[in-house]
Amino acid sequence: MKKPWGGRFEKDTDAMVERFTESVSFDTRLYKEDIRGSIAHAEMLARAGLIAETELAAICQGLLEIEGEIEAGEFEFQVSLEDVHMNIEAALISRTGDAGRKLHTARSRNDQVAADVRMWCRAAVDETVDLLTDCQRALVEKAVEYRDLIVPGFTHMQHAQPVLLAHVLLAYVEMLARDRDRLADCRRRLNVSPLGACAMAGTALPTDPESTADALGFDAVFANSIDAVSDRDFVIELVADMSLVAMHLSRLAEEWLIWAALEFNFLDLDEAFCTGSSIMPQKKNADVLELIRGKCGRVYGDLVSLLTMFKGLPLAYNRDMQEDKVALFDAVDTVRDSLAIAAALVRTAAFKTDNIARACVAGHMDATALADYLVGRGVPFREAHGIVGRAVRTAAAQGAQLQELSLDELRSFSDEIGEDVYGVLGAQNCVESYRSHGSSAPALVAARLEEWQTRLAED
Amino acid sequence: MKKPWGGRFEKDTDAMVERFTESVSFDTRLYKEDIRGSIAHAEMLARAGLIAETELAAICQGLLEIEGEIEAGEFEFQVSLEDVHMNIEAALISRTGDAGRKLHTARSRNDQVAADVRMWCRAAVDETVDLLTDCQRALVEKAVEYRDLIVPGFTHMQHAQPVLLAHVLLAYVEMLARDRDRLADCRRRLNVSPLGACAMAGTALPTDPESTADALGFDAVFANSIDAVSDRDFVIELVADMSLVAMHLSRLAEEWLIWAALEFNFLDLDEAFCTGSSIMPQKKNADVLELIRGKCGRVYGDLVSLLTMFKGLPLAYNRDMQEDKVALFDAVDTVRDSLAIAAALVRTAAFKTDNIARACVAGHMDATALADYLVGRGVPFREAHGIVGRAVRTAAAQGAQLQELSLDELRSFSDEIGEDVYGVLGAQNCVESYRSHGSSAPALVAARLEEWQTRLAED
Amino acid sequence: MKKPWGGRFEKDTDAMVERFTESVSFDTRLYKEDIRGSIAHAEMLARAGLIAETELAAICQGLLEIEGEIEAGEFEFQVSLEDVHMNIEAALISRTGDAGRKLHTARSRNDQVAADVRMWCRAAVDETVDLLTDCQRALVEKAVEYRDLIVPGFTHMQHAQPVLLAHVLLAYVEMLARDRDRLADCRRRLNVSPLGACAMAGTALPTDPESTADALGFDAVFANSIDAVSDRDFVIELVADMSLVAMHLSRLAEEWLIWAALEFNFLDLDEAFCTGSSIMPQKKNADVLELIRGKCGRVYGDLVSLLTMFKGLPLAYNRDMQEDKVALFDAVDTVRDSLAIAAALVRTAAFKTDNIARACVAGHMDATALADYLVGRGVPFREAHGIVGRAVRTAAAQGAQLQELSLDELRSFSDEIGEDVYGVLGAQNCVESYRSHGSSAPALVAARLEEWQTRLAED
Amino acid sequence: MKKPWGGRFEKDTDAMVERFTESVSFDTRLYKEDIRGSIAHAEMLARAGLIAETELAAICQGLLEIEGEIEAGEFEFQVSLEDVHMNIEAALISRTGDAGRKLHTARSRNDQVAADVRMWCRAAVDETVDLLTDCQRALVEKAVEYRDLIVPGFTHMQHAQPVLLAHVLLAYVEMLARDRDRLADCRRRLNVSPLGACAMAGTALPTDPESTADALGFDAVFANSIDAVSDRDFVIELVADMSLVAMHLSRLAEEWLIWAALEFNFLDLDEAFCTGSSIMPQKKNADVLELIRGKCGRVYGDLVSLLTMFKGLPLAYNRDMQEDKVALFDAVDTVRDSLAIAAALVRTAAFKTDNIARACVAGHMDATALADYLVGRGVPFREAHGIVGRAVRTAAAQGAQLQELSLDELRSFSDEIGEDVYGVLGAQNCVESYRSHGSSAPALVAARLEEWQTRLAED
Repeated sequence: MKKPWGGRFEKDTDAMVERFTESVSFDTRLYKEDIRGSIAHAEMLARAGLIAETELAAICQGLLEIEGEIEAGEFEFQVSLEDVHMNIEAALISRTGDAGRKLHTARSRNDQVAADVRMWCRAAVDETVDLLTDCQRALVEKAVEYRDLIVPGFTHMQHAQPVLLAHVLLAYVEMLARDRDRLADCRRRLNVSPLGACAMAGTALPTDPESTADALGFDAVFANSIDAVSDRDFVIELVADMSLVAMHLSRLAEEWLIWAALEFNFLDLDEAFCTGSSIMPQKKNADVLELIRGKCGRVYGDLVSLLTMFKGLPLAYNRDMQEDKVALFDAVDTVRDSLAIAAALVRTAAFKTDNIARACVAGHMDATALADYLVGRGVPFREAHGIVGRAVRTAAAQGAQLQELSLDELRSFSDEIGEDVYGVLGAQNCVESYRSHGSSAPALVAARLEEWQTRLAED
Repeated sequence: MKKPWGGRFEKDTDAMVERFTESVSFDTRLYKEDIRGSIAHAEMLARAGLIAETELAAICQGLLEIEGEIEAGEFEFQVSLEDVHMNIEAALISRTGDAGRKLHTARSRNDQVAADVRMWCRAAVDETVDLLTDCQRALVEKAVEYRDLIVPGFTHMQHAQPVLLAHVLLAYVEMLARDRDRLADCRRRLNVSPLGACAMAGTALPTDPESTADALGFDAVFANSIDAVSDRDFVIELVADMSLVAMHLSRLAEEWLIWAALEFNFLDLDEAFCTGSSIMPQKKNADVLELIRGKCGRVYGDLVSLLTMFKGLPLAYNRDMQEDKVALFDAVDTVRDSLAIAAALVRTAAFKTDNIARACVAGHMDATALADYLVGRGVPFREAHGIVGRAVRTAAAQGAQLQELSLDELRSFSDEIGEDVYGVLGAQNCVESYRSHGSSAPALVAARLEEWQTRLAED
Repeated sequence: MKKPWGGRFEKDTDAMVERFTESVSFDTRLYKEDIRGSIAHAEMLARAGLIAETELAAICQGLLEIEGEIEAGEFEFQVSLEDVHMNIEAALISRTGDAGRKLHTARSRNDQVAADVRMWCRAAVDETVDLLTDCQRALVEKAVEYRDLIVPGFTHMQHAQPVLLAHVLLAYVEMLARDRDRLADCRRRLNVSPLGACAMAGTALPTDPESTADALGFDAVFANSIDAVSDRDFVIELVADMSLVAMHLSRLAEEWLIWAALEFNFLDLDEAFCTGSSIMPQKKNADVLELIRGKCGRVYGDLVSLLTMFKGLPLAYNRDMQEDKVALFDAVDTVRDSLAIAAALVRTAAFKTDNIARACVAGHMDATALADYLVGRGVPFREAHGIVGRAVRTAAAQGAQLQELSLDELRSFSDEIGEDVYGVLGAQNCVESYRSHGSSAPALVAARLEEWQTRLAED
Repeated sequence: MKKPWGGRFEKDTDAMVERFTESVSFDTRLYKEDIRGSIAHAEMLARAGLIAETELAAICQGLLEIEGEIEAGEFEFQVSLEDVHMNIEAALISRTGDAGRKLHTARSRNDQVAADVRMWCRAAVDETVDLLTDCQRALVEKAVEYRDLIVPGFTHMQHAQPVLLAHVLLAYVEMLARDRDRLADCRRRLNVSPLGACAMAGTALPTDPESTADALGFDAVFANSIDAVSDRDFVIELVADMSLVAMHLSRLAEEWLIWAALEFNFLDLDEAFCTGSSIMPQKKNADVLELIRGKCGRVYGDLVSLLTMFKGLPLAYNRDMQEDKVALFDAVDTVRDSLAIAAALVRTAAFKTDNIARACVAGHMDATALADYLVGRGVPFREAHGIVGRAVRTAAAQGAQLQELSLDELRSFSDEIGEDVYGVLGAQNCVESYRSHGSSAPALVAARLEEWQTRLAED
């Protein structure tokens, strides 16, 4: 069967290759980094005597004009010029002639693109850290707002022990703190300049890579030119870090989706953050949470994409690496959007305290407190655990909570139980009784909240 | 802007939420399927007496006008209307009033989008199968062109046995045949209409899902309305099939990249399919092959993205599923582009027969033939294997090939070796001696080539 | 220990290399397939005159003895012999001498292992299909047991429309039906014999691959010897199919975990299928469901593992491929275990009909029914949707359901509403009113149940 | 068998459930960490007055005896006791009675297992860092051994520029340095004690988590008890780091496999690190390199496995998390084995200097040097690039290298070329001319080698 494109193909072969190999459809995002990098490179060339001061001036002026045109939407990128780098260089040459032709002295696209991507990643890290911080702030604000609210604590999606809502929200604050910490490490590793590695071997020209590194805000300069152009570890590490952020958000999303289910009804999401159904008029859906959860898959996919690309890739630069930006940009955009909307959603969410209070009565969440009470009376824990297990079974059979059992009933399970047992039963008593480090004890949670408020005010 | 589902809502959707939840930036690609599906749905509604014939006419005319505007680039999609479906419905209502307001009778976006995506996938399968077939044709043409060329056959990236190049190329033809077979199975499974499932439960209205299925070219209609709206197995299966295609192409790409390396120099890629270096003037790089190899990662990533999305997703429709199209479109586009360019690249590639002939002399590829010769003389295979191993070691120490050893030297390893041994040594003799089914025997390879030519002429 | 392939080697293999390259720690599972394949191969060799009948007899007897020893746990596998194939061959040679030394005539480990793995996969498919069928049976049995039970139907994890529990359970039956269908396709593609491809080129010896294929129950024989030894598509396809099974089970697991949460309390899992907590005496955790959900990740990981291995792998056999079995075995084991336990868990689960009935009153699930009622009175759907949206908002503000609104109240939203509206409101009325194909209409669900009972009785 | 948590249960656990939910088949590896953790916990309990000193003594003695039995292979783990933790506790109780029954006071398996896994990971990091360091040493030793050897430097798998082999090997040293750096960061984040978080809320008993943290060598103690038991970020981060190590090794493996191919013949792997073929007597296969490459897929799969498990997992502990150890152990084992064998393989490899020298003559690798020469004479780089491109095309047409062109021929491309041009052409001249930071300049490479020798001697 003759393909629609079959005839055209023999005439237009070059065009198909152009389309297949181009990256200008996605790498124009690097224009700022590219221009900044080119200016730093040109300044170094001038200092090294490789171009004249007048040439430097022409190059800088030309590049800034081009930047202006791009920002004004007036620059026409051409697919035939492959990528953002060659588009800008060609435009520069067309307006500066020989000066522009000298810009690529002692530079290859191999080190140029690596430098641009590193600068882009650095900014992406900084912006993501800011968004993480804001998300932490939103969680802390909400924790403060409901600082006395006791909620069921879950393990295995079953009632486990009563805890403060603030303690639950702070658990997410801790997760995001680790995300920030990981990104800070990632930033340190990625903020190394590859400029000056040229194609892969360095150059015989009298260049000064330290000075370009310095001018571009890099903390260090590459140690090995081959590694400098073939390394994309920083992209993979960044997307791995983004995957953890996305995973954390997916956990929050799932938990809140469950809490927003009618049967739980713990959570009241702001209408402005919900959507309706095209067919079912009653629906108020938490689509934002669902999308945060679903987009986690997108970030994971980006990570796999990158890892696959670099599996078994010989040194040094290979064109496969061009595709890294597709996954990188997608992962960063997805996580940034998810963080921004998560913060807003948290800030506008309300908790239904009555429903939550009712839920706290159910599920025998004070069973562990009773066991600890017995331990305090010298009963070995394993034995106490068994005693309480039987008490729970009896209570459950009656549809009762432990505190609803009479003292006689309770003592039928163990003689060690006394009247004071009622002081440890019930959600409120349980929470008030916690005292261990890092626990849901009200005073400790309040202190931790304050600590975070201080830290986040400073960030 | 008031949402079509906004009845129960008092607040407007937050602008950030609109941006985060919109899909119109990528699902406009479904406009043809959406309009075709809506027309079929309207026709069914008319037959069921749920809309009047005049209303049907207004709807159909309105939809076709909208389609025309979209194709002319004159239709303005609005992010506030979320997706392609609501954009088209809103435009229809604005021009047809109540007729348009009736189109969504007995339909939800849940079944609507599922139907659209299935139609899109069906077309994607058909187009991919055509591209696979063309790629097979290109491989067969190249095999015919070099039908007598013997190349080293590799295992472990080392010379193993001499084979016909045609036999190697036909190995890829077999792979792509399996890809076509898998896609045909996938098409059968996906070509089932979900239209009529409505939100998830079906409807009390007198609809006729069989008739819409029929009108839209579906082979069958859904059996269970909940499954119909929550099932995206077909998307995952399709992208899994695409992953295997991408994997096959990555194997070809890697093999050819190695063959194009200067040290091999087996392959001469058309200059029109190569690119140069921005810094190294001598480079002729096989970027197309590298990108085919690298893009494999992208398709794998899309698969992981989809699998992750559906992990642990409760029934029935959840908004997470909206993201499926991002991965689906990307995987299909990537594989289609890779197939198209692979076919063209194969057609324009030339093999360097002299270099290949020289390579065939090296590597003792006739060692197995010598072992088989000994087996023919009654030497147990394991013993023959040992004898030949020692002969190879001796030859290698001299920098010689087996056929360069004298008869006396050869007989020093086994008395069973006679003068006729030289008739089985050397690449040419080896290849000519093959006779087993499916082997690289020239007659069998020629027959298989002919078989494929016939089949591919019919496809 | 001297390796069977050691002829050309002067040095012994390094001990660390032996450990690193061995596969005998996991591929002993293939012993049955290996022995069966070797017997078929030996019979072919005898028919081809390549070994004597007495040698055939010795080989067969030796292999059967070895099989007996393996099954009795008396066979000692040696890491220095790398894999199950060489272990068995070495044992055979040690007891049959030259007869054993002839077994590897016209065979390589490359085609041998491919044949063994294909036979193993075939059995794995058959067993998995049986388990899927049994899981379907369990779901159908449970659906029959609760055939009249109405449950809330969910979209976006919110109440959408009332449906029969049987309809929900049948949605999973449909999913598993597709899994069976996919596995049947996979089986057809994998049941092709690679035996006779030898190392990669075929052989000059007068072998008969069709006869070994036939003897081993393969439907067809390989077409291309290079493809035969380098193809593991069937492993990847099988594990992709397994990933979909695991995904389906993870959806069921998540849904049931939510239904088992105290706030839902729809589901009563048998105590024998739950576990407790080491510290919290009251806990009754659905660990089985959690592990089914979590193990989904394991299967996905296996798929990624396999896809990565084959990315960019040149033809033909490469040692990387040895690792395919680790992922294959793990994925198949995981899915088989999950299916077996899911069936048992479904069979022993009870639904809490009172709690479910209470839930069905909430959530305005009859809103769509009211909209359809209005459509039946000529109100355009989009308008009806808006009317009902407002009615729901009013009812919700009063904490009421739609049927609890007075006729006057209802008519305040639309004059088209009459007394008969109460006949469509409420979960029971809704479900009874469904009539469309594939919907949750009681008669249709009953018919589909019967259809599945018949089909599953025959499977 | 009665479970330690069985108090509230009336039924025994189903046998199939026991098999499905057990982890003792893989988590016995944690026995050392578990016992060490239990002793620290018991000591804290004693200090807090929750157990008597005699009980502490009994517990410690019992645990050490159990440890001895496990190490002697005399301890019988029981599947019915689920995991390593309950097996050890049950054994302790059976020998110490009430003392043992008190060990689980103020501890849950949730914090216990988290602590054990963290200790295990910490040791895994340390061991992996040592192996990375040794691998760096092997690379540096080999670089020193061939310190003057010039090899073709590749980009796009084509000759790019001549470089020192030492420079190539140092590129891998830099990669592994980043791996070490990442693992150090990971270690810092993971070395935080979760002990004392109990089930998820902390406890009312007077525990002292700081003291157990200190006793077990943790740098810090958890801040939030919910986070402490639900967090497995450290496992994912560790396996992500392992994925990068595996990726780096796969790049080295692929490069060396290509270099070992007969057509390259740059590399001579030690026979003890190669294997043969069961059918082809001449084969000397680099199976170790292939397996290093292939096992990369295994590690990636483990990462995907883990990421999938935690997608959308609600707080706090869920049983899904049990599976994390399967992926964790597999990834760490795989990378450790790969690193150990890679170091040994590097140390025993030899480079074929003659073949490499021959290769350095081909491929016009001095083209960039010629362009830089022209730049030095004031020709704008883009123009120089064009001039040299034409010269290369001319030379290639003659089958000549640039230095084989006469001065007249060279000057026909540019008047700027003078007699001194021959001083920059040819691989040796090129390499000697490099002078930029991080380049392959002999003096700089030597300095970097020395720097690494010093650092690695100290590590």
